[in-house]
Amino acid sequence: MDNDLHGTVALADREMAAASDRKLQLRLWLRLLTCSRMMEAAIRARLRAEFGTTLARFDVLAQLDAARGELSMGELSARLMVTNGNVTGLIAGMEADALVARLPHPTDGRSTLIGLTPGGRALFDRMAPAHEGWIEHMVRRLSPSEMGRLLELLGKLKDSARERDVLSGL
Amino acid sequence: MDNDLHGTVALADREMAAASDRKLQLRLWLRLLTCSRMMEAAIRARLRAEFGTTLARFDVLAQLDAARGELSMGELSARLMVTNGNVTGLIAGMEADALVARLPHPTDGRSTLIGLTPGGRALFDRMAPAHEGWIEHMVRRLSPSEMGRLLELLGKLKDSARERDVLSGL
Repeated sequence: MDNDLHGTVALADREMAAASDRKLQLRLWLRLLTCSRMMEAAIRARLRAEFGTTLARFDVLAQLDAARGELSMGELSARLMVTNGNVTGLIAGMEADALVARLPHPTDGRSTLIGLTPGGRALFDRMAPAHEGWIEHMVRRLSPSEMGRLLELLGKLKDSARERDVLSGL
Repeated sequence: MDNDLHGTVALADREMAAASDRKLQLRLWLRLLTCSRMMEAAIRARLRAEFGTTLARFDVLAQLDAARGELSMGELSARLMVTNGNVTGLIAGMEADALVARLPHPTDGRSTLIGLTPGGRALFDRMAPAHEGWIEHMVRRLSPSEMGRLLELLGKLKDSARERDVLSGL
């Protein structure tokens, strides 16, 4: 708990250190990073305190849910943006806790699918509304029209940042 | 390089999976996270490719620069939002590469300060304008007034998310 509060304060300082005399673009990036890390830290702390679980496990369950219950290891890796090696260990732990199970692949006999177990489904069904509630609470001071405008501007930023990656070959 | 492009695509998918049928608040959070991770991945890749260094090392140099050259280990830890243990290893590596040095604390004989060496200062002076240029390029499709509005809305979001932490005791 102290770590998270501490982190929040530290991030604010980090942005302030760059304030005033620096360029608008740099201030924008630091504020974006501050918001993102602050919200992520709160979500991690809540998942740990209320469900005894990690953001990585929540993300696995959310991706499986969005995919209607089943994904190959490669698909899961791609959606989680971690390496296959990391996903292997993560999934092994979740398998041991009966949150997910390995299933035979319907068309590729050498491959397996990862599926939600009834227990994994039940846990996700409890966590998803809580997760949504934390986020709603964190953004509550923005009016619906401010949220819409922020979503739109972040969409423009996403296109701008993504295009750069492609052009520069990164 | 492939990993970063891959990551970008994966993040886009992650947001799309939550689109349309989910609430505005959740879409806002996922888009914020996508932008932040996409930009961070590009910055990490550039620091590695062009300066052979990591974001953690860049952050240490930037914090020391903002503090006019010197910070205690505790202050540095707080500003970097990592544990003291991690900072100790990070600083030991940077000391071995002569980017930072330990200095006697002017008022507390039991403590030391971490300071920029001339080599660390020279490296940061080369990296800082490059870092600023990457960010300018990534956000270039936003007009100055859009950047100003985005900064303002993110400021409101930051206050909203921070207040929640305090109220909930996280």
